[in-house]
Amino acid sequence: MSQLRIRDFGIDIGTLSTGKRNAITDVEGVRVGHCTLSKGSTQTGVTAILPHEGNIFKEKLIASSHIINGFGKTMGTVQMSELGTLETPILLTNTLGIGTASEAMIEYMLEHNPEIGRSTGSVNPVVGECNDMLLNDIRALSIEKRHARQALEEATSEFSEGSVGAGRGMVCYSLKGGIGSSSRLVELSHGTYTIGVLVLSNFGRLSDLIVNGKPVGEQLRRHVTASNAADKGSVMVIVATDLPVSERQLNRIIKRSVTGLSRTGSFITTGSGDVVIGFSTAAKIPHQADTPLLSIQTIHEEDIDEAFRAVSEATEEAVLNSLITADSVTGRDDKEAHTLRSLLEKYPVSLL
Amino acid sequence: MSQLRIRDFGIDIGTLSTGKRNAITDVEGVRVGHCTLSKGSTQTGVTAILPHEGNIFKEKLIASSHIINGFGKTMGTVQMSELGTLETPILLTNTLGIGTASEAMIEYMLEHNPEIGRSTGSVNPVVGECNDMLLNDIRALSIEKRHARQALEEATSEFSEGSVGAGRGMVCYSLKGGIGSSSRLVELSHGTYTIGVLVLSNFGRLSDLIVNGKPVGEQLRRHVTASNAADKGSVMVIVATDLPVSERQLNRIIKRSVTGLSRTGSFITTGSGDVVIGFSTAAKIPHQADTPLLSIQTIHEEDIDEAFRAVSEATEEAVLNSLITADSVTGRDDKEAHTLRSLLEKYPVSLL
Amino acid sequence: MSQLRIRDFGIDIGTLSTGKRNAITDVEGVRVGHCTLSKGSTQTGVTAILPHEGNIFKEKLIASSHIINGFGKTMGTVQMSELGTLETPILLTNTLGIGTASEAMIEYMLEHNPEIGRSTGSVNPVVGECNDMLLNDIRALSIEKRHARQALEEATSEFSEGSVGAGRGMVCYSLKGGIGSSSRLVELSHGTYTIGVLVLSNFGRLSDLIVNGKPVGEQLRRHVTASNAADKGSVMVIVATDLPVSERQLNRIIKRSVTGLSRTGSFITTGSGDVVIGFSTAAKIPHQADTPLLSIQTIHEEDIDEAFRAVSEATEEAVLNSLITADSVTGRDDKEAHTLRSLLEKYPVSLL
Amino acid sequence: MSQLRIRDFGIDIGTLSTGKRNAITDVEGVRVGHCTLSKGSTQTGVTAILPHEGNIFKEKLIASSHIINGFGKTMGTVQMSELGTLETPILLTNTLGIGTASEAMIEYMLEHNPEIGRSTGSVNPVVGECNDMLLNDIRALSIEKRHARQALEEATSEFSEGSVGAGRGMVCYSLKGGIGSSSRLVELSHGTYTIGVLVLSNFGRLSDLIVNGKPVGEQLRRHVTASNAADKGSVMVIVATDLPVSERQLNRIIKRSVTGLSRTGSFITTGSGDVVIGFSTAAKIPHQADTPLLSIQTIHEEDIDEAFRAVSEATEEAVLNSLITADSVTGRDDKEAHTLRSLLEKYPVSLL
Repeated sequence: MSQLRIRDFGIDIGTLSTGKRNAITDVEGVRVGHCTLSKGSTQTGVTAILPHEGNIFKEKLIASSHIINGFGKTMGTVQMSELGTLETPILLTNTLGIGTASEAMIEYMLEHNPEIGRSTGSVNPVVGECNDMLLNDIRALSIEKRHARQALEEATSEFSEGSVGAGRGMVCYSLKGGIGSSSRLVELSHGTYTIGVLVLSNFGRLSDLIVNGKPVGEQLRRHVTASNAADKGSVMVIVATDLPVSERQLNRIIKRSVTGLSRTGSFITTGSGDVVIGFSTAAKIPHQADTPLLSIQTIHEEDIDEAFRAVSEATEEAVLNSLITADSVTGRDDKEAHTLRSLLEKYPVSLL
Repeated sequence: MSQLRIRDFGIDIGTLSTGKRNAITDVEGVRVGHCTLSKGSTQTGVTAILPHEGNIFKEKLIASSHIINGFGKTMGTVQMSELGTLETPILLTNTLGIGTASEAMIEYMLEHNPEIGRSTGSVNPVVGECNDMLLNDIRALSIEKRHARQALEEATSEFSEGSVGAGRGMVCYSLKGGIGSSSRLVELSHGTYTIGVLVLSNFGRLSDLIVNGKPVGEQLRRHVTASNAADKGSVMVIVATDLPVSERQLNRIIKRSVTGLSRTGSFITTGSGDVVIGFSTAAKIPHQADTPLLSIQTIHEEDIDEAFRAVSEATEEAVLNSLITADSVTGRDDKEAHTLRSLLEKYPVSLL
Repeated sequence: MSQLRIRDFGIDIGTLSTGKRNAITDVEGVRVGHCTLSKGSTQTGVTAILPHEGNIFKEKLIASSHIINGFGKTMGTVQMSELGTLETPILLTNTLGIGTASEAMIEYMLEHNPEIGRSTGSVNPVVGECNDMLLNDIRALSIEKRHARQALEEATSEFSEGSVGAGRGMVCYSLKGGIGSSSRLVELSHGTYTIGVLVLSNFGRLSDLIVNGKPVGEQLRRHVTASNAADKGSVMVIVATDLPVSERQLNRIIKRSVTGLSRTGSFITTGSGDVVIGFSTAAKIPHQADTPLLSIQTIHEEDIDEAFRAVSEATEEAVLNSLITADSVTGRDDKEAHTLRSLLEKYPVSLL
Repeated sequence: MSQLRIRDFGIDIGTLSTGKRNAITDVEGVRVGHCTLSKGSTQTGVTAILPHEGNIFKEKLIASSHIINGFGKTMGTVQMSELGTLETPILLTNTLGIGTASEAMIEYMLEHNPEIGRSTGSVNPVVGECNDMLLNDIRALSIEKRHARQALEEATSEFSEGSVGAGRGMVCYSLKGGIGSSSRLVELSHGTYTIGVLVLSNFGRLSDLIVNGKPVGEQLRRHVTASNAADKGSVMVIVATDLPVSERQLNRIIKRSVTGLSRTGSFITTGSGDVVIGFSTAAKIPHQADTPLLSIQTIHEEDIDEAFRAVSEATEEAVLNSLITADSVTGRDDKEAHTLRSLLEKYPVSLL
């Protein structure tokens, strides 16, 4: 990633070390792919998160979701809560694209798993969304199945942030938002584990933006005649880890992302679909049992605080990365959201 | 409805009176439409439930969902839980058709509401499903957007039950299942209200079937060499009422449907996505506020038991109606599920 | 147990085999103790369930609770949901006795664990209740700490049912209710496991009582001028098992108790605090970690249906056992609830 | 209140106006009472919150609870979730005092409501707790019923903060914590409403403390050899408002307290029982219905964001008030927690 990120501006969030890429793909096997649509008033896209390199339907992962605020349309959380597993990649797109994205995911899963609907049951596509209608003509329903497919197929461990993929048209704290990521290392007596976070940021208004404790949004408001409109946005938070955890423990861990969001200034407005989805790569849950019992290793509960801290810090930093990496996008009705980068260049606001 | 229903066989479930049609459409304004696909190994369809005759997006209804067992892919429950409202019709279809159905619903809602994605936010499509893979070639992805549209457009207060719409390929207690409905009157001191239930039945194995307390399934098993396969099914339960209730009260009411399911023999197997969605037509929640405060009338909690009893009885009877009305369907690989009607004609099993 | 139980009347619920005692204590290590208060208008008591024979605080069990209907005051479920463990015995008593019972439990735990409040944190007492005010003068606050202590200390694997312990003053289906128990064997390819259920029954009205599918309550109503008053009661269901399960799986299993309750005629009235608490003895979760990671064995999800069936059948039978074993109790204002046994002796109602 | 509060140090949290007292008692009718035990190693107490001046059992309030982290023993939330009402005052005390406190509450309610347990059912005491074992000899079980009674009886609209009542022995961010309060005005087009918050603070470690965005805890750490021990604490947050809201809306509002906690530095550690209880005084729900239907006024959902902001700001400020008002307490084993006030006087740390 050659983009300047928040650490390049001297901002170190929290106290824990980051992984090598400081991204969700620091969790081994995790890959991210984007398909970006950028043409006139169509400024939208799809982002795919692939949880491991094998066949995720045959080797499911322990997974959990948490609804911070449910004004959203995320699909797939009902089954995830019941069974505690993830059996597809995760797609992110715009709100009105979820139907198409889930269709694409179903076709993709059928292709890779000929037994679905024959010798085994169905499949549970997981698709999250935010509403990019400020910059994107969301009524045009521009997302096609091939876009979701492309995001899935181009997923790699090195990926871009900002105004890409599902993040293309997103607006966060009245600035250009989108995709951001960060990671933290969790040092336990028995090993070092990684927690990685990816956000699709589309929430908040400028005056509320806090950067590492400083009221940067309020300061920028003095210079900019930008919109400070009531927030209609959302945020998707994807948490990956290689920590050995039960689904209950994973749920506890991913819930802490709200503390990171809060520290960027969010108080979780009503119109926001704030949804967290997490998975652990530590164990594979076979679709077909091959042993009488399943044996799962988990951390002791007393070791979990470091994971809480990690997800909090990584979420905060991922949001800031989504803002600082975002490129300017001119979309529907020639609307444009300021980028944090351009404002910091123009105005005497210090992040430090 | 000219089909013979369970009451025509002398079976009266419970003690409360039924509505005029003994169907969900006894709740004024509720309409049901089917689109049935029946050609070779394609035996599937879509069923639409329209909650009132106005614009449901502009005049939302208090709504609630309850997950009895979450091995399912129902969409739209996250927002319903957060906001307590329903803002679209409800579509039911096969498991792999949910993406397409939700696309169709989004297009339908955009057509009827030009302000979505412009001056107002997005829309939350509610789509439920069961897996009809035993009789239907679900991998063929036969559901198209026009099928969902047709179900929406043909909805009326008189509708068929059994092997129609989304119920076309469903199998329940190893017999042909599908759509069933029933209703009950709730007599309170201040008026008579209606609770209507519609089920999409696709669960259970023959030996567990109970009809009004009698182990009819076990008796039939002695005669039939039918499959008694482990249950991979599901059930969708839609509850409509004109009772004035809060979303909390509505949630309590719809939860009682599990008692009705239990009395038909279900113990809610793991593979089943058993999901209940309910709405009340007693109040309209305006999309745009036109008064400073909203004023909602609700029943007193002490009046709620009659509603509990009503939803229990109507759910039990709706499942039995789905079984007794179902016509024989020959589907994928020439498979065929017995119909309860044909077995009762052939074998010396008394329902009374 | 020398009491006649429902099987002695020819009623076999379901299809699975029972354990040796057909009681919750068929799960190895589980013990039950009662302290019964019976003097004039004081007709109440305490029942203790001890989950294993060791120190439950030091060796916790995977546990879960489920609220079927929350008009109840059960304590301890918040922490159980968060941490997935049980760290004390379970006490049952009357509604207004929970404070005293939890005090007694705290003292008991402090005695056995001198490190609580010193080198380790606090302890989470689990206390359930039903309201026995129909027969017991509940305002007299007769439960004392020594009664709870006595129930804990006298716990054994052989225990009485009916009008004993916390069940002393309970009324179920307008008949004398109280303590009932039953168990089922779960045969899986890798071994035979046990699920045991104990209920404290205090719900329902006579006309709704169903015995093994037969409307026995309705038939009895014709003979008896007994009360058929609106239900103000509750039921506590305790589920023990030695199945290796995660807390998520255990939660799924204990939820199925509602199907057993439903088959006895309940539709879960509003005034009822219907609460299920379950634990598995298969693994001990150490209070102090002694290995880097915890290793937990769990069944495969596809094996869980037999456990669902078992908890359903055992709950249904436990309720019937609570009714059939209950002795007549004359309590407050010389009120008396009929016993099922006496009615069956007097009136021509067949259970078969 | 003559104590210096955080605003006296030039710290204004957020942008909304406070109520007259900047305390939970700005919501009309709300009163707070303390009973403080301070003798040697007994440093604990009880705090009572009375929600309105009438008979709360006969005129219940719409109420809701939210578990941020469930490592806690709070009683009464099960029924509150089911019925959406509060019918007793709220007591706060130390973890092992909940049994006694609930006994005292039951006696208090029986005294004031002779129909409980006679012509009407039981009562649901609401008691919250934190673990004060660092300063208080919690094993001594010093809380007696008369202490709870005293807190209830001495409740007034003017009350102290800091090391009083249940806050006597609490430790927050490794400093002396306890009771803190704050309020905000919510200006809507149709009127001005108040949201008040009271916290019992007992969580966090010094190095994590943030004051209005500044890492004050980290700075203090450089000067103080104080403990920075892993957090075993908890926080209770009580939210009162006169906003007309449904229980669903109230639940959404009180959930936002987590954003305020987060901004003081919390990432919600595992050992913390972080529980929020809220109530609205806008409507009285009669215990005995006196009209056929209940008519409830609620705000429109689009007006709710100001309430979200209010509870976030008031929670953050209430925690800071608990720290800055706390007096030094020497307790068990002569342990003593630093007070924030004394550290700020001694060391060159600026809050501004």
